[in-house]
Amino acid sequence: MELAYLNGWLGSLEEAHVSVNDRGYNFGDGVYEVLRAYDGVIFALEEHLKRLESSAAAVEIELPWKPAQLKNITEDTLSKSGIKEALIYIQVTRGTAPRSHSSEADMLPNLLVTVRNIIEIPPSLYSEGVKAITMPEFRWQMCNIKSISLQASVLAKRRADRAGAAEAFFVLPDGTVTEGASSNIFIVKDGVLLTHPADNRILSGVLRHFVLKVAESLEVKVRVEPFKISDLMKAEEVFITGTVAEVVPVVNVDGKIIGGGQPGPLTGLLHQGFTSLHE
Amino acid sequence: MELAYLNGWLGSLEEAHVSVNDRGYNFGDGVYEVLRAYDGVIFALEEHLKRLESSAAAVEIELPWKPAQLKNITEDTLSKSGIKEALIYIQVTRGTAPRSHSSEADMLPNLLVTVRNIIEIPPSLYSEGVKAITMPEFRWQMCNIKSISLQASVLAKRRADRAGAAEAFFVLPDGTVTEGASSNIFIVKDGVLLTHPADNRILSGVLRHFVLKVAESLEVKVRVEPFKISDLMKAEEVFITGTVAEVVPVVNVDGKIIGGGQPGPLTGLLHQGFTSLHE
Repeated sequence: MELAYLNGWLGSLEEAHVSVNDRGYNFGDGVYEVLRAYDGVIFALEEHLKRLESSAAAVEIELPWKPAQLKNITEDTLSKSGIKEALIYIQVTRGTAPRSHSSEADMLPNLLVTVRNIIEIPPSLYSEGVKAITMPEFRWQMCNIKSISLQASVLAKRRADRAGAAEAFFVLPDGTVTEGASSNIFIVKDGVLLTHPADNRILSGVLRHFVLKVAESLEVKVRVEPFKISDLMKAEEVFITGTVAEVVPVVNVDGKIIGGGQPGPLTGLLHQGFTSLHE
Repeated sequence: MELAYLNGWLGSLEEAHVSVNDRGYNFGDGVYEVLRAYDGVIFALEEHLKRLESSAAAVEIELPWKPAQLKNITEDTLSKSGIKEALIYIQVTRGTAPRSHSSEADMLPNLLVTVRNIIEIPPSLYSEGVKAITMPEFRWQMCNIKSISLQASVLAKRRADRAGAAEAFFVLPDGTVTEGASSNIFIVKDGVLLTHPADNRILSGVLRHFVLKVAESLEVKVRVEPFKISDLMKAEEVFITGTVAEVVPVVNVDGKIIGGGQPGPLTGLLHQGFTSLHE
């Protein structure tokens, strides 16, 4: 059964409610993580909790829970849900107080953990690949923080949806491609795997991290450095990474065919390598 | 009594709750307005509702309420609260649905209207002025939309707080000063009133609009054009505008004294002129 944990309360997701004075609701003032459980085991829980901590620190929210407590709460909610293939969401907001931009120091953060059934992903996503679009980067300049202030990403996703695409890639004025609205992007150029460095322009994904590890173990040539939209359009392979869909080939960008319109061999190898990490 | 209206429900602000699946809570996916009632009369209600509509359109939320309905709901909530000097908050979020970046077309927006007592503003704010700081612009590039994804503004306000300042001004790489985290900024340079044009870099405030009107009626020389941080630091007068505090003199920026450290005469005249609009 899909469950929500909210500040000690546990119940159905539909019954979980927060005050309209929650700063998450008025200011998007909070941080989050999306996790995946495979056969009842949460993948990379510690990495996710570490990133949650660093996002919280970056927005100056002091977490009143120790990592072990967050781990217990998350695992306990998963276990009580009885869901094996789960999508887990953790959100921490600054707290609840009458709306004012300034935030008092003694506010108590709100913790939400939800456990849902993972969305069924059609196998064609991997065998056929997806379309993507590009658009000028217009988000804030602290994309390394996993903040719930996601209006820009929502608008980018809507633009992609309208174009029949699965993802929108952001492009800086100098042509550098940073990441997708909810994924990291990798390209293969002259046999080398390229992805943007983990700076303020991207959210350094947990999947991104593991794909880089898999690439290393497979002795794939990797360069973690910015690449341009011209590189993207001529790439041998393009794929995106994210917690839910893992590794997804991109075969069309802005209506132009990438890599012959077929998912690339390295994309498949890396996905296979990732899959073996949680089997 | 402080009241909240929420999708037809009316009750105390403390009792108003929303689902954790409200997209306002997970994505900062919504827009808002802050209004002021003087002696039971809402100032510039139509201007605010018009801006709410245009913000909603910009984030592709179709409002299911006609302007007249929104007007009635807002005025009715104010009237039932019995509060005369009121701070009114209107928020519209995309709707409620299990968390997913993509948003379905048939989602029904959520409407929140709250009425609170206006915060008492100490007269010294106007007679002595306030301090401000500057910081590099790091927000998204659609600041013309009054979105609730306000993480960047919250962080800027916290930085100002720590510096003992009332506001943080954003500065573009070329030195242009855009606006404050929750206010518009005006400077007086060589007797001319300057403020940034209403483009994607600022939220065109209702107070900003009326101050410009008052300036016009007083035959003050006005130039609505970008100015630099060097202009700000040498300005004869600096002030900020916002719905709650109206017109507030700034006498210190980044620790440097502005205009001899005293609120300027034009600032006072414009504030007086504004006050006469709602008396």
